[in-house]
Amino acid sequence: MAPITPINAPHPFDPLQPGEIRLAVAILRAAYPGVPLRFKTVDVQEPIKSEVIPLIEAERLGQPLDVPRPARLVFSYFHRVDNGVFFKGLVNLNDRKVVQVTELPAEIQGPADPDELAEMEEVCLKHPAVIKEIEKMKLPPGMTVCTDPWVYGTDEEDESRRLYQCYMFIVPVNHPQSNHYSLPCDFSPVFDAKTKELIRMDNLPTRNDHTTKETQPWKPVKAVEYAHDLLDQPHRDDLKPYLVQQPQGPSFNVDGQLVEWQKWRFRVGFNVREGMVLYNVTYDRRNVFYRLALSEMTVPYGDPRKPYHRKQAFDVGDVGLGITCNQLTLGCDCLGHIKYFDGYRTDSKGNAVPLKNVICMHEQDGGILHKHSNYRNQLATVVRNRQLVVQIICTVSNYEYIFAWIFDQAGGVEYEVRATGILSTMPIDNSDGLTVPWSTNVGPGVSAPNHQHVFSPRIDPAIDGFQNTVFYEESVKLPKELGIADPYGVGYISETSVIDQAGHTETDVSKSRVFKIRNDSIMNNVSQKPVAYKISTVASQPMLMSPDSFNRRRARFAEHPVWVTKYRDSELYAAGEFTSQSTSSSSGLETWAGRGENVVDTDVVFWHTFTLTHNPRPEDFPVMPIEKISVHLKPSGFFEKNPALDVPPSNQEFNKSCLHSGGGSGSSVGKL
Amino acid sequence: MAPITPINAPHPFDPLQPGEIRLAVAILRAAYPGVPLRFKTVDVQEPIKSEVIPLIEAERLGQPLDVPRPARLVFSYFHRVDNGVFFKGLVNLNDRKVVQVTELPAEIQGPADPDELAEMEEVCLKHPAVIKEIEKMKLPPGMTVCTDPWVYGTDEEDESRRLYQCYMFIVPVNHPQSNHYSLPCDFSPVFDAKTKELIRMDNLPTRNDHTTKETQPWKPVKAVEYAHDLLDQPHRDDLKPYLVQQPQGPSFNVDGQLVEWQKWRFRVGFNVREGMVLYNVTYDRRNVFYRLALSEMTVPYGDPRKPYHRKQAFDVGDVGLGITCNQLTLGCDCLGHIKYFDGYRTDSKGNAVPLKNVICMHEQDGGILHKHSNYRNQLATVVRNRQLVVQIICTVSNYEYIFAWIFDQAGGVEYEVRATGILSTMPIDNSDGLTVPWSTNVGPGVSAPNHQHVFSPRIDPAIDGFQNTVFYEESVKLPKELGIADPYGVGYISETSVIDQAGHTETDVSKSRVFKIRNDSIMNNVSQKPVAYKISTVASQPMLMSPDSFNRRRARFAEHPVWVTKYRDSELYAAGEFTSQSTSSSSGLETWAGRGENVVDTDVVFWHTFTLTHNPRPEDFPVMPIEKISVHLKPSGFFEKNPALDVPPSNQEFNKSCLHSGGGSGSSVGKL
Repeated sequence: MAPITPINAPHPFDPLQPGEIRLAVAILRAAYPGVPLRFKTVDVQEPIKSEVIPLIEAERLGQPLDVPRPARLVFSYFHRVDNGVFFKGLVNLNDRKVVQVTELPAEIQGPADPDELAEMEEVCLKHPAVIKEIEKMKLPPGMTVCTDPWVYGTDEEDESRRLYQCYMFIVPVNHPQSNHYSLPCDFSPVFDAKTKELIRMDNLPTRNDHTTKETQPWKPVKAVEYAHDLLDQPHRDDLKPYLVQQPQGPSFNVDGQLVEWQKWRFRVGFNVREGMVLYNVTYDRRNVFYRLALSEMTVPYGDPRKPYHRKQAFDVGDVGLGITCNQLTLGCDCLGHIKYFDGYRTDSKGNAVPLKNVICMHEQDGGILHKHSNYRNQLATVVRNRQLVVQIICTVSNYEYIFAWIFDQAGGVEYEVRATGILSTMPIDNSDGLTVPWSTNVGPGVSAPNHQHVFSPRIDPAIDGFQNTVFYEESVKLPKELGIADPYGVGYISETSVIDQAGHTETDVSKSRVFKIRNDSIMNNVSQKPVAYKISTVASQPMLMSPDSFNRRRARFAEHPVWVTKYRDSELYAAGEFTSQSTSSSSGLETWAGRGENVVDTDVVFWHTFTLTHNPRPEDFPVMPIEKISVHLKPSGFFEKNPALDVPPSNQEFNKSCLHSGGGSGSSVGKL
Repeated sequence: MAPITPINAPHPFDPLQPGEIRLAVAILRAAYPGVPLRFKTVDVQEPIKSEVIPLIEAERLGQPLDVPRPARLVFSYFHRVDNGVFFKGLVNLNDRKVVQVTELPAEIQGPADPDELAEMEEVCLKHPAVIKEIEKMKLPPGMTVCTDPWVYGTDEEDESRRLYQCYMFIVPVNHPQSNHYSLPCDFSPVFDAKTKELIRMDNLPTRNDHTTKETQPWKPVKAVEYAHDLLDQPHRDDLKPYLVQQPQGPSFNVDGQLVEWQKWRFRVGFNVREGMVLYNVTYDRRNVFYRLALSEMTVPYGDPRKPYHRKQAFDVGDVGLGITCNQLTLGCDCLGHIKYFDGYRTDSKGNAVPLKNVICMHEQDGGILHKHSNYRNQLATVVRNRQLVVQIICTVSNYEYIFAWIFDQAGGVEYEVRATGILSTMPIDNSDGLTVPWSTNVGPGVSAPNHQHVFSPRIDPAIDGFQNTVFYEESVKLPKELGIADPYGVGYISETSVIDQAGHTETDVSKSRVFKIRNDSIMNNVSQKPVAYKISTVASQPMLMSPDSFNRRRARFAEHPVWVTKYRDSELYAAGEFTSQSTSSSSGLETWAGRGENVVDTDVVFWHTFTLTHNPRPEDFPVMPIEKISVHLKPSGFFEKNPALDVPPSNQEFNKSCLHSGGGSGSSVGKL
């Protein structure tokens, strides 16, 4: 542990600032005098938990802050340009020294970075072989071609080249939001990202089989556009403005990355991999969660045909949610009073690149939180459900994900994932009405294959402290062993099973299985049980691919919905640290859970895998209306009664609603 | 079918008006000259579908409205006061005649009505035996006792008396919102509602077994109160106002009961049993649903001990959601511009009783509906998710339910159920820390038993017409029989199973089973499949009671999550027409589904049973934060593309959000 650092140093959970990036890059460059370096990632190193706890406990308890703190560490993935060797380096900003540099094995691929992707696009579009294929399409004047390079899902063990499968699309009009995904080409070159060589020109199957043919002249069809000024229909003219006014400002306070709202208090972290991270979440000065973030996600596609079997994005590990997250705009993405948080990434030259407004925070009204009327006198107590939303929106090529942590006034936290954006499409020769069973036609010449979105939020709990136990409860008929007669066959109880060993388990809707995390040292005086939070896990279909497929081998976290591990520093990413072209996730969750350590009354981590199986609708194109999945984390005996009783009542003086006097409840005379 | 009625007559889907109630009552009284009648229900008779279709199709297509319409029929449950006989009568208001009166068998019990419940409370509290029990408690001065009479869940076949189990509570302070549910008494009298006789005085078990004892002097404990001015904690002072302003008014138009909003068009019906009913739901002049309503719900409790096995509310059939729904208040229950619809019930004397503001309708902002950014230039298209909420809130003694149909701009409808209010409680002698396994202690001397809320919304579809077919799709690995090689083990398809015979089926999360309703006569030109809507059923634990328990026999609709029937007029209520003290639901859904009729390409009805298994948390007391369940009805190939593309873009000019400049994204200097 480092000595006590000055009080104006960054908080250990603060994201990296530009000066820190510059300093870290300078320290690394100085370690390689005369050697040109190419930077892929420069980011804050997750602090060691045991080194942070004294500080955050002093903060929570309002005690003096002159406690030891962790050193400010930065890690970097970088290449030597001269020989291509890939390194992971760790730098201490406090003493301005390199802590360690590790040369990574040749088969390890780092994540894609924006400079590399832009370069890949340019290489592809300028390559003579690609130009030749484009010419074969005989496009009308004014139409151009673009490419989305895809990280190469591997199908063999020993690929050490760094490859991109470039999917090609026709850009139908010169408009910055023209929907090229509506016009996929039927060829796809594969490039080596290091040598810039064309490895292969794939022709894509376009019928109900594996056959391919030479690139053909394009059969003109109309693109399905989404941009408002490209639509051939008028806007609706009957949508009236809906304004959220907060005349006294929002109910939150922000100090740097520290947020206080309705007894909640937490720090907003940001890094290029996970994007948004919440740290040290407390309620009314009681510990609830140490760290909340999406650890990984993967999106395998169900098209059996080459090269589509390679389509398996790992949006956290392959690129990074911090890299792909949108720089948000006032009035577009949220209503009301919006607080934006910025972030920084690093470009290939080691410069800090500002990411403005990447995390947004605002309040919203979630309807009624609780209500009761005394039916004898009609007198009602109503409390509205004010919520605090902390959100990022990521664009991963075609798709968009909206990730939000939503806090309420009753101790609840909701992790909400919304999928929107544009379906990943493929060409189909459907002028004769052809359909294929693994895909949905969404326009002329374009089809959107079935796929699954598999998410793995990592929940690092701190239920009234850092020693916790995970268990589940099931609703079962009153067991005979209890010796209580049940003459009418109505009795049922909640049966508890403790997860005592690190590992995985299943959801079970048929028993209303609910997972909880408790602190055995703190009793709830009302329920006479240890204080706990429950996690309403999402029951969903597991990954549909074969157990021995690369899709499954690369994402074993998808095999089970619930995993419990004993906390260890730097065990953060479910599919392991490096997912690009990975052949296995064995450096990830399944290995950590496989240690089978005791996880009773100790520092535990809860991992929840849930899946959105998405077999597209025509309505999901050209931009899909959101599909939403939520995981709720709620107190369950953490409080002795509803903690929101002290929320002021909802009334007209406070809410200023308007009575609509149009229409009536009588009969509809005249107009039918 | 009746002759063409004047154009200013009520619409067949309009709720009953006071003049119609008066007329119907007068017609019935005239049929029984000199005989005193006691009215239980007077309500609109559901029109015969085939008689309404010509009118609603003319409306939809903008054709002349001079088509035949159904007669305006009213039904009534009423008693002869002289001999107690119970009748169901049907009256034609057009020709002012009684159509039919049926004498109901002695074992049939009608629903509870407000006059009866008030009388029952009075009878109970004035009864000498009850007064004697109250005296045994030796309550301190100022404390009183009240009762909630419970409809008597039967435990034998041949009960023809009409009984109420009166649960007794101490009212701790003279305050209109004092929480008597916090202080349940340990005795419970049973009364005959007709003779007003005390049938039995039950003593309630209060330990971990079936034993009971004489009513004891009350051990003073503090009630857990919810009313704001009874709390011993201050209100939060940091919640700032959050106002919804609609300077140009709402986006809906209302004409009588007809609502038009964002291409949706429907009629808001109201009746005392189902409360809110939506009729003739169309989108952009295309039929989508004929009728949407909650058909029934039941709430069995998991306490094995007498008399708690009788606790099984049927909140639709036993009382009626229209009877129990709250008269809503501006600013308390909704934000923004609110349209209220009124209803009427009838008292025991046949008078129309106004129910003001029982249905509310307002718009809300549901976050982002769709978004895509072109990552090459960061240009984004964002459309917000404006929603229309049509809602009732029902108070069923202790509990509250918030039922809402929520429409969106992309053709989606969400049926949202929120449970709130106060847990049903029982006394427990827990001064020594006793807990019982089927219940959660929620305060001193009070425990809240496990229970299940089982809901059955009835969805009468009209997907582009009235001849529909229900089917389900499952995601399965590419079947070998398709003859398509799958060398990488990634292929998966959507497999279709048609429900061709009326009956029931299960949910299956492990296969992402999704139910759809299609119209085989109308093809989607893009997907090349029939137009359809999908229903995202809720997978939940079935009722936990024994198969031969009265709880299960009275609610066979709870046995399966999905039921499909061939439409027949007046088959509306899943547990049958009369649920009070019922011994079986055989006059309901299981019988209609059991006919096994062909349900392919015909007029079908989709019934979805879903359950909230509620094992209380201490946090659910004294008023529970909402628990929410939603069923989504979404177009699935009903449209050729996202139907919300024409919604105007979201931007600051329209939304007028505010930038919060507090805090910063830098490090948190100084304050930690």
